[in-house]
Amino acid sequence: MKEDEYLLPLYKRLDVSFVKGKKSILYDEEGKDYVDFTSGIGVNSLGYANKEVVKTIKEQAKNILHTSNIYRIKSQEKCAKKIVELSNLDMQCFFCNSGAESNESAIKLARKYGNTEFAKAKYKIITIKNSFHGRTIATLKATAQEDKHKFFGPYPEGFVYAKDINEAITLIDESTVAVMLELIQGEGGIFMQDVHKIKELETILKSKKLLLIIDEVQTGVYRSGNFLISQYFGIKPDIITLAKGLSTGIPIGVMMTSLKNIFKAGDHGSTFGGNHMSTTVCTKVLNILEEYSNSGKLEVNIKYFNNYLHYFVDKYPSLFLQKNGWGFMQGLVLNDENKLDEIVKKSLKKGVLVLKSGKNIIRFLPALNISKKEIKQGFERFESSLIEILKEEKRK
Amino acid sequence: MKEDEYLLPLYKRLDVSFVKGKKSILYDEEGKDYVDFTSGIGVNSLGYANKEVVKTIKEQAKNILHTSNIYRIKSQEKCAKKIVELSNLDMQCFFCNSGAESNESAIKLARKYGNTEFAKAKYKIITIKNSFHGRTIATLKATAQEDKHKFFGPYPEGFVYAKDINEAITLIDESTVAVMLELIQGEGGIFMQDVHKIKELETILKSKKLLLIIDEVQTGVYRSGNFLISQYFGIKPDIITLAKGLSTGIPIGVMMTSLKNIFKAGDHGSTFGGNHMSTTVCTKVLNILEEYSNSGKLEVNIKYFNNYLHYFVDKYPSLFLQKNGWGFMQGLVLNDENKLDEIVKKSLKKGVLVLKSGKNIIRFLPALNISKKEIKQGFERFESSLIEILKEEKRK
Repeated sequence: MKEDEYLLPLYKRLDVSFVKGKKSILYDEEGKDYVDFTSGIGVNSLGYANKEVVKTIKEQAKNILHTSNIYRIKSQEKCAKKIVELSNLDMQCFFCNSGAESNESAIKLARKYGNTEFAKAKYKIITIKNSFHGRTIATLKATAQEDKHKFFGPYPEGFVYAKDINEAITLIDESTVAVMLELIQGEGGIFMQDVHKIKELETILKSKKLLLIIDEVQTGVYRSGNFLISQYFGIKPDIITLAKGLSTGIPIGVMMTSLKNIFKAGDHGSTFGGNHMSTTVCTKVLNILEEYSNSGKLEVNIKYFNNYLHYFVDKYPSLFLQKNGWGFMQGLVLNDENKLDEIVKKSLKKGVLVLKSGKNIIRFLPALNISKKEIKQGFERFESSLIEILKEEKRK
Repeated sequence: MKEDEYLLPLYKRLDVSFVKGKKSILYDEEGKDYVDFTSGIGVNSLGYANKEVVKTIKEQAKNILHTSNIYRIKSQEKCAKKIVELSNLDMQCFFCNSGAESNESAIKLARKYGNTEFAKAKYKIITIKNSFHGRTIATLKATAQEDKHKFFGPYPEGFVYAKDINEAITLIDESTVAVMLELIQGEGGIFMQDVHKIKELETILKSKKLLLIIDEVQTGVYRSGNFLISQYFGIKPDIITLAKGLSTGIPIGVMMTSLKNIFKAGDHGSTFGGNHMSTTVCTKVLNILEEYSNSGKLEVNIKYFNNYLHYFVDKYPSLFLQKNGWGFMQGLVLNDENKLDEIVKKSLKKGVLVLKSGKNIIRFLPALNISKKEIKQGFERFESSLIEILKEEKRK
């Protein structure tokens, strides 16, 4: 079958397809194995074929996958409780099916808050240059990358772009209701915000009763080492969005908020959102990750992974400018952006999967439970691809 | 646990929760059984715990749930092929996670078409009164129910509401790029459009190179008796959206189109969309439904179901004005809208689940493979709830 015969050509796909996986190792159709440093772009938080997850999915499929939200769904209630407890915040949850839907929910909530809680309605949401908030019309407009906006207008008014947190603070005006941002920009170059600047922003917003919306679609669910990277920053956002890693591969999104009295019944909803399967798996995944994090193994392995990245920056200064990132959300910044595709493709050939971010960054988003052995094997393959690229360069 | 302790109060939930199901029978926490005429609002197309589906889910979970769309996903390619073949249309697919995301994809595609394929850009999309296209900002604005729009503005410009197909035709102007509609309005009263009017609209749109977008999120996947209700109408839409029943409870959405050259790589995308689990289950569900439909059983059972609805309209004229709908998407129109909640709740008590649509319609969306025995049992319970309601009324 030709790849594009029945699919719209929306992805530049690498010509490999995987048929099975075990922990952080994937196998293609020929049985070749790959160490996976991508986890489906942060989705497969527990890697592949985790025994407890497989058992949970099997049991749940035998019982019930889905009922409508017009009935109570106990697994959804439990899952919300678990998420709120792990966050240490006094919040409530809304379940949907993706990061984009989580951010749509956050935007709707902020707008209702702005439209109903002030004498003069507020509606503007400030977002940060190079952010990525989704592919729906509104979340695409919230994404402060204007080259992505052509073709799909007209867009909703009310999104304002700041080049950084300082500018975001100066842009707050009478119509502003919220600032929405990622604490590490996943798609925009693994760029981490400054803790003190974010706290300053939080203080200013709170003093004006305006909202801080943190998009943790990529940073959340222990990706940073903490359940939320907001916890590391020591902030209390008004709204947090989550998705990717929550159910290690079953589509799910969550918008959580301390604003419990703004949305009323009927204001928003989802058919699939929060169903028996997605929330049962989510609770299981969170329990496993909580235990793993508490055991100290997550922190140890993040350090082990980091050491390799420092090693590469030190050893291959002709290739790498620096290391960006935090936790298990890491990037190696290339001196020459023309090398980006070459390294990704050579790595694939050598049996290790890595991602791109921005124009010149090799991005690493491994499964959170990746083992030292897998890390070592992956980086050995990665280094062999670097050596081969440098050799080929010399020959030219 | 209090129902609303960790969940935003967005749904008016009935106080029952289900722990397992078998075919079209659900069981609550006390073991009480219910005949399900709702299928999770059209999602559980094969009911609960279908053996082949359970086996497929189990096998897939053991192999691989998800990889990124930067790699080929063979199950996605297969699934797209199956969907296109069942549609009998020359189309390609994009996979996402919900009906709202499918409709967002359709709107983006129509807008890119309008912005790039004409000398003077076109962007307006005409939608029909009482439609329902989703809960994201753009699909909510596409939903021609203006009472649902307060609080969440500003909205994107470019959605125009017609009270019916005739008016939609008259509203087409130089800026119009598409008409988007449901052939049966699921949320708006199980209202079916007229075949001849729709064909007239199609002819006019094609003559102007404008697009016909059919939202089959609720009507699609054999809900109407055909794979697509567009097939029954004998039309060839430019864009069709699907979701609900595709994977019998795993979140999934599809936007399919004959416009194969408008979207380029990077124009749109989804992280979870089209992953191994959702598309493998989808292909299995479609194979089962195709066989079931070809066997003639689906048509026979739709008739059997319909006969009950006619019986109720004839026997209880004080309660019911008429029967609306088509296939397994049916409604009983009440004389008195105040009876709506009462009938839904009394039916629940008697052990049969039914839905609401609009203000005065009892809606039926059973699993597509519901058996005659289950239909009979469900309607016996439904009738006993009607009898009790009428008795109680006399007593007053």
